[in-house]
Amino acid sequence: MLPRLPSANLRALRPLNARAAAVVPALRQLPAAHRAAVQFSSHREYSSESEHKQPKWITFNNAVVCAIAFVLTKQGTEYVLEKCFSKKAPPEGSSAALSKLAVPETIPHADYESEESKPRYYTATQEPMHKRMEEFVLDLQNRLVTALESLEPAQTKFVRDRWEREDGKGYGISCVLQGGEVFEKAGVNVSVIEGTLTPGQLKSMRDRNPQARKALSSGEYDFRVAGISVVVHPRNPFAPTAHKNFRRFEVYRKGAGSEPVMAWFGGGADLTPAYLFEDDVRHFHRTLKIACDAHDPSYYPRFKEWCDTYFTIVHRNETRGVGGIFFDDLEDRAPEELFRFVYDAGNAFIKAYVPLIAKRMRTPYSQREREWQLVRRGHYAEFNLVYDRGTKFGLMTPGARIESILMSLPLTARWEYMNQPEPGSAEDSLLQCVRKSRNWVE
Amino acid sequence: MLPRLPSANLRALRPLNARAAAVVPALRQLPAAHRAAVQFSSHREYSSESEHKQPKWITFNNAVVCAIAFVLTKQGTEYVLEKCFSKKAPPEGSSAALSKLAVPETIPHADYESEESKPRYYTATQEPMHKRMEEFVLDLQNRLVTALESLEPAQTKFVRDRWEREDGKGYGISCVLQGGEVFEKAGVNVSVIEGTLTPGQLKSMRDRNPQARKALSSGEYDFRVAGISVVVHPRNPFAPTAHKNFRRFEVYRKGAGSEPVMAWFGGGADLTPAYLFEDDVRHFHRTLKIACDAHDPSYYPRFKEWCDTYFTIVHRNETRGVGGIFFDDLEDRAPEELFRFVYDAGNAFIKAYVPLIAKRMRTPYSQREREWQLVRRGHYAEFNLVYDRGTKFGLMTPGARIESILMSLPLTARWEYMNQPEPGSAEDSLLQCVRKSRNWVE
Repeated sequence: MLPRLPSANLRALRPLNARAAAVVPALRQLPAAHRAAVQFSSHREYSSESEHKQPKWITFNNAVVCAIAFVLTKQGTEYVLEKCFSKKAPPEGSSAALSKLAVPETIPHADYESEESKPRYYTATQEPMHKRMEEFVLDLQNRLVTALESLEPAQTKFVRDRWEREDGKGYGISCVLQGGEVFEKAGVNVSVIEGTLTPGQLKSMRDRNPQARKALSSGEYDFRVAGISVVVHPRNPFAPTAHKNFRRFEVYRKGAGSEPVMAWFGGGADLTPAYLFEDDVRHFHRTLKIACDAHDPSYYPRFKEWCDTYFTIVHRNETRGVGGIFFDDLEDRAPEELFRFVYDAGNAFIKAYVPLIAKRMRTPYSQREREWQLVRRGHYAEFNLVYDRGTKFGLMTPGARIESILMSLPLTARWEYMNQPEPGSAEDSLLQCVRKSRNWVE
Repeated sequence: MLPRLPSANLRALRPLNARAAAVVPALRQLPAAHRAAVQFSSHREYSSESEHKQPKWITFNNAVVCAIAFVLTKQGTEYVLEKCFSKKAPPEGSSAALSKLAVPETIPHADYESEESKPRYYTATQEPMHKRMEEFVLDLQNRLVTALESLEPAQTKFVRDRWEREDGKGYGISCVLQGGEVFEKAGVNVSVIEGTLTPGQLKSMRDRNPQARKALSSGEYDFRVAGISVVVHPRNPFAPTAHKNFRRFEVYRKGAGSEPVMAWFGGGADLTPAYLFEDDVRHFHRTLKIACDAHDPSYYPRFKEWCDTYFTIVHRNETRGVGGIFFDDLEDRAPEELFRFVYDAGNAFIKAYVPLIAKRMRTPYSQREREWQLVRRGHYAEFNLVYDRGTKFGLMTPGARIESILMSLPLTARWEYMNQPEPGSAEDSLLQCVRKSRNWVE
């Protein structure tokens, strides 16, 4: 008897197979669930074209989702998805034979998309931008938490923790899943804070940004910031760690109304694998690139380079991972335009990352691979504690919520003296990769 | 059949029971091996006087070392060692009955002390101080490595690793034991380095020290430093982590001979338990205090307070551990006097710390205690990466040997979101202890 798929799990299938979508434009028209199922049909790399033409049951967390068949074409050394056919899951208790699937049948997948799981395209444009950003990050938090939770077997859920600042000037919602089967530690935090800028903060803004030198003359300024910050550390060494952070920062002249004198967006998303699967990295970068390209073709190359530069562990002469995008002080065009970009980039993270966990979370691994993962996490902790601006700023801020700031640190990490992978090993190949910036989209 | 004790293990019994020695002056005359055996005869806390009058075999790493009987006297709520009798281990294969031990017999223990294991009292006084410091730290490294190794069952040894700076201006010897049964990670590093002070380094010296403002006028300066740096992370959660660091820093006017224009000693030793055993902490502090008091009764109180201040994890409002001593820029009396103090403090570390590992390394523990230890190690890593001057200086120095600098980090660490021990638990009692400075010697 086939178990019925819980509706929460269906949402996990929503992420877009961006790589396939980029290659086969027609696929872009397919419902998201369809495309995700294609990507994760067999949870492994393919070695021949013919086997994919055979229809298969697609299972997810051991429940049958649908049946699928698809056609790959070899291009050079790579297989590219060309056509895809699917049939939704049989009714509960059915044992309809797989062979009965009529191969060229395409099923409308609208029934896989519930209203609640769709990104709410933000609220009325007459609302002030900081309010729209707040609503967006809360909604994104909710959707990301749901997507991640759906990968985790029943028992372990995110703990949702709302906190308020003692002075009443802001709140946050920390969602943390710790000690799960799939997620060793995952945190999805939103914070919405206001306050008065200290002279030191003002100085650092003016030093960093010529715009701020002009706009922020003498006098006192208040700020408002709404942002989302995400760090996911899966347990499986083959499933990569990822981080994203998107925020809108507004500065007001103290006591002079609600119109910001300056406002900008900042953020980014980056991937930190312990083992290198080039296809995974390409998928992550391409998905972000598609989101960037829709707004400005210069965004992805600029923000990709910025990301490599920012996430450098200087003392180890390596990057924290394989990068992604990073930007700050973004305020060079209409707020509406920038918001739409941040909105798309924020949503793209789910499509860029969640499928990679789903793909790798059940790969068998040994002690050796686990230990290498923990060594890499040690480097991750080094970056966050020694270099990360947000973490440093937080640690030095009196009254800051340390638990939320250090939520980014892995549940477990390891520092081995003189850990030097054997040349040519899988560990060494990751190391070579983080020592030199690479192009992942050509 | 009783296994014969390997001679290496005998050396582990050498550390002085400083606490007993302080209480019963006559004990100071006893050979070191005798006193150590007293302290660790039963590997547990005592609950009555009478049971200690019964002779017992003293085993160490499952090998019989000697037989011992001793007398405790109750003073207030504490037991104080009054008399102690021992008999050396029986010859291999002997099964001489314990009851045959003639209780008041005292055995000369000269045979437990080999020439090689005694501290070499430093070399001829006509040698320059930097040379004597170098010889001292090399000798101390050797003795400490031997003492630690002797606690570790046969297979795992320190890896000794000599490195030279590429520019020829110095060398170091890193001794690291990793993944042992007793020691999860222990590093005993010596480095002997020379170079030219950068303008930044000169500025920070002048800012910190009024002496330096006077002595280091404009112009270029060279420096020489010889030091030892030790971090020991035992595996057993009840055995505390400890750190020590002693160094001599000399500054020369560039190209103006070999007489330093300024020179100072710096260093310290501190203890970081995951679980609080007040007796252990008192032993550690008292042993260091005895070494300090022999030179200046103001040293211990000053350096104890300095240690509490320096090893503060500001963002957590707690100290890294239960302190010890810490000092820097020590140059207010004749170099010979200061060297003798550093010499004694450096040696005292062995007596202050090694017995604590021996006492706790076999205590049974559960997953809960192991995880708490790893959480505390997370805080340890935070201190080292965020606040420790030496680590930060090292990470920012181009060409520095990162492996030696980060050797201080634990093999494993853990960051749990919202880890809050139950009030009144053993974990909570450690936490309360690191949140408030305490007097450990009265």
